[in-house]
Amino acid sequence: MAENLLEELVEGLRCLPGVGRKSAQRMALYLLERNRRGGEKLAQVLSDAMSRIEHCKQCKNFTESELCEICSNYKRDASLICVVESPADVLAIENSGAFEGHYFVLMGQLSPLDGIGPEELGLDTFETRLQSQQIREVILATSSTIEGEATAHYLRELIEKYQIPVTRIAQGVPIGGELEYIDSGTLARSINERRKIEY
Amino acid sequence: MAENLLEELVEGLRCLPGVGRKSAQRMALYLLERNRRGGEKLAQVLSDAMSRIEHCKQCKNFTESELCEICSNYKRDASLICVVESPADVLAIENSGAFEGHYFVLMGQLSPLDGIGPEELGLDTFETRLQSQQIREVILATSSTIEGEATAHYLRELIEKYQIPVTRIAQGVPIGGELEYIDSGTLARSINERRKIEY
Repeated sequence: MAENLLEELVEGLRCLPGVGRKSAQRMALYLLERNRRGGEKLAQVLSDAMSRIEHCKQCKNFTESELCEICSNYKRDASLICVVESPADVLAIENSGAFEGHYFVLMGQLSPLDGIGPEELGLDTFETRLQSQQIREVILATSSTIEGEATAHYLRELIEKYQIPVTRIAQGVPIGGELEYIDSGTLARSINERRKIEY
Repeated sequence: MAENLLEELVEGLRCLPGVGRKSAQRMALYLLERNRRGGEKLAQVLSDAMSRIEHCKQCKNFTESELCEICSNYKRDASLICVVESPADVLAIENSGAFEGHYFVLMGQLSPLDGIGPEELGLDTFETRLQSQQIREVILATSSTIEGEATAHYLRELIEKYQIPVTRIAQGVPIGGELEYIDSGTLARSINERRKIEY
């Protein structure tokens, strides 16, 4: 237990990722000296968000409603599902503006050693969705790490049973990346999976 | 107005200094995914702190009581006052462990062009304190900037009237600093104000 309220505030701010003692102190003093209104507003929205944000019933993304904004948006293509690991991935793909379908958020990766199996990732509800809805394609957008690839592999086998086409997001050199700075694994992949230029 | 609660939380977190959109998003998702308890606690202490923390009646430092912990601590030397610009300076000096007296926190610097005169810094209450209490020394610990020096100069003249000894914190090379990396202004000062080594 901290000795005074300012000290408690500094301690409280340290629960934020990447915020050490010094930054927490700077934040606390800044709010007290220059932006109490902002601090009050943050306290309110933080309390609201922590108690009201749950997972979407369909895609498991964060939302304060039963269905998230994407799942309940009738303009989006419900027959196209992109499977990602986390809500941050959804935000990143949404930012790219390249996807107009629905999502399924695993909230993790398959990791049997840590006790994270298909059920922990909600793949039973995902399977029900595959059975009950008209799905024309599932895009696997898990990470290009060993666990991400293993998860994608498992998903591919699961989805194959329902004869739904499955794709994996393209792996290769990032746009704007200079070849000399790209790791050899990525480079090897981009050469092995080169594609024909159409005339 | 943001479109959903998660978006509102991200916006809310951006009121913290040094937190841009990306960090705010990372903080929001981290709290939601892994530390809701911490987020709730932070919301509570933030709300408490914003509404309850005021300025100490004597030294103007932040406190939730009428007198701050330092001013109300009878073990500290009330006849020695250190004048600083901000609560962060008090924390820094307290951390150094080199000072056992009381403080006066200006909450700024003299800056006539910005309309910050002696009254805005509460120097009228400070003067009353000089008159009514037994003060044996005032240490001026304002910054070594032009504004800080100007503020120190004004304070020196104010305190002189009451024939109280005034000192300025030592300026020179920092401990552990290598000479070649120290700016020339500091180096010149440290040579001009060299002190005799006593045998």
